[in-house]
Amino acid sequence: MERKWIDNIKIVEPYIPGEQPKDENIIKLNTNECPYPPSPLVNDAIKNFDYGNLRLYPSINCDRLKSIISENYNVSKDMIFLGNGSDEVLALCFMTFFNSDKPVLFPDITYSFYDVWCKLYNIKYEKIPVSDNFEIISKDYFKENGGIVIANPNAPTGLYLEFEEIEEIVKNNEKSIVIIDEAYIDFGGESAVSLVNKYNNLVVVHTFSKSRALAGIRVGFAILNSELKSYLEAVKNSFNSYTLNSLSITAAEKSMSDLEYFQKCREKIISTRNRTINILNSIGFKTLNSKSNFVFTTCQNQKASYLYEYLKSKKIIVRFFDKPRINNYLRITIGTDYQMDKLFEELKNCL
Amino acid sequence: MERKWIDNIKIVEPYIPGEQPKDENIIKLNTNECPYPPSPLVNDAIKNFDYGNLRLYPSINCDRLKSIISENYNVSKDMIFLGNGSDEVLALCFMTFFNSDKPVLFPDITYSFYDVWCKLYNIKYEKIPVSDNFEIISKDYFKENGGIVIANPNAPTGLYLEFEEIEEIVKNNEKSIVIIDEAYIDFGGESAVSLVNKYNNLVVVHTFSKSRALAGIRVGFAILNSELKSYLEAVKNSFNSYTLNSLSITAAEKSMSDLEYFQKCREKIISTRNRTINILNSIGFKTLNSKSNFVFTTCQNQKASYLYEYLKSKKIIVRFFDKPRINNYLRITIGTDYQMDKLFEELKNCL
Repeated sequence: MERKWIDNIKIVEPYIPGEQPKDENIIKLNTNECPYPPSPLVNDAIKNFDYGNLRLYPSINCDRLKSIISENYNVSKDMIFLGNGSDEVLALCFMTFFNSDKPVLFPDITYSFYDVWCKLYNIKYEKIPVSDNFEIISKDYFKENGGIVIANPNAPTGLYLEFEEIEEIVKNNEKSIVIIDEAYIDFGGESAVSLVNKYNNLVVVHTFSKSRALAGIRVGFAILNSELKSYLEAVKNSFNSYTLNSLSITAAEKSMSDLEYFQKCREKIISTRNRTINILNSIGFKTLNSKSNFVFTTCQNQKASYLYEYLKSKKIIVRFFDKPRINNYLRITIGTDYQMDKLFEELKNCL
Repeated sequence: MERKWIDNIKIVEPYIPGEQPKDENIIKLNTNECPYPPSPLVNDAIKNFDYGNLRLYPSINCDRLKSIISENYNVSKDMIFLGNGSDEVLALCFMTFFNSDKPVLFPDITYSFYDVWCKLYNIKYEKIPVSDNFEIISKDYFKENGGIVIANPNAPTGLYLEFEEIEEIVKNNEKSIVIIDEAYIDFGGESAVSLVNKYNNLVVVHTFSKSRALAGIRVGFAILNSELKSYLEAVKNSFNSYTLNSLSITAAEKSMSDLEYFQKCREKIISTRNRTINILNSIGFKTLNSKSNFVFTTCQNQKASYLYEYLKSKKIIVRFFDKPRINNYLRITIGTDYQMDKLFEELKNCL
């Protein structure tokens, strides 16, 4: 059939997420999910959910969820913006806040969705090289720009940029919105949330997918001043009024209110991460100093692509990025101690 | 605090959805929700859901859900695009398919999100007036355009445009993508889905929110040829990889597979609707010939705005649009027979 409409179509190259294999025997260390289940309160809430209410639209404002987040983060409710995963939150932030002729700045090695969003919306951007040690250099961001986005800890490196350095970037860019994507902050480092009341150009983005073990519910949120939030809310309500569903809202409420479980869970992951770094380094790897729930590591005696394929053949999936500067590294999600022991065993067999 | 960044912000007027009152004693006839609960299979699926799996990202492709939809609609799986409510599906369709210098066409009286999306993306548009009887005139759409979107049955009128007229619009616009938004088609009329294999410029959009009583899960879908679907999928994956959550996917699967419950439910609503039209007309209203789960009606002896406020004071909420041409009409969702009897009683008291 002829395609006479083809000129009207937007044709883009999408972001490609990590593999989602169906085989349940696979040890899945490739998408930075939590190896532990979410808070048991989530289970109770789902089991007790009155399914008849699903006939109704969800709560528009998610007041209860916002109240719980507001207490946890010590910010007012009107500074909280909720979205369908932190990816949607970020996508809407890019659409709302990055409308300048000057380029948006972000590191050359970082979450690979940032340039995808820029391309989708025709936003100019400039990738700022990280150092040879993969560190973000804050003063490189002290120049004219149309916005800044920094993942902290950064992905896929896991490196944390000190709180003071983040503050310097925010302070030196009062003409732009600075987004700090803190998807992994709960695994180390200090959140920039406490700076939101001090700087009106700062947006901090969090997710339920990592430290709260709820990647399956698709809930993320931004903390930002109420004026910026109102612009973001208006764009969101011009795109989709109800981005969160009733079941996920309930699950998120319960998860966010179970602080004890959350602490226990992240402590276990931090402890396994530190053990992982030591063991990897003892068997010939050089591993970056991760503050996240994954490690970024390179082997001195074997190519990363080879290790990736070898592990895959042993039903262990990690992440390999075939990209300049990082194509000899593996990103390995922190699993349970049992899963990591299996990984170490296979790596030793291979080397 | 100074706002030196203000020029970089996109400032828009959002779509305003119907009220969502919290008072459970209210008879809520304002947002076209289903008065009956979803299929009981949905309840079983939620109760039996293994909450531990929520730690994982949802299925990327939703294969099982697509298979069930594919069987129900007799189309191949690669013609199905899923989104976070039909609003997200439509929002992404506008972004993907409407990139022309020519205006997108839609009726002047229709779903009020269409012009909101055009404004959000800076898409040119032209509103084509419906007739004095609120009918869409198909030949008015036989002219140069950058795309067409028609709600069928239309909202808030509930009027159905005959299948043959829809086909004429699609056939006479081979240079544009024609979107038929069939949110209400299950309550009357024939779906245009059967035309998707015949015309490669047609996109048909459906939702779980109305006839499947699942507004709370936020799932909608489009049926379109696989090439168009691949462009839409790429844009979606450039915006948000995982727009559907695991619980909603499961609920949608169960709902879509319970054909018997679905039929029973829509028959009840159709029967209550026809009774509603008769009763309203017998007490001084003029009601359009609705093929949807709501009626659009005007009272010969009393202003719509007055009736709206009166009903609200009696804890019955209907929808009133303070807009040209329709500001003497009420849009009333079909509830249970009990709820409608309460409505008739209050209207009789008022008149």
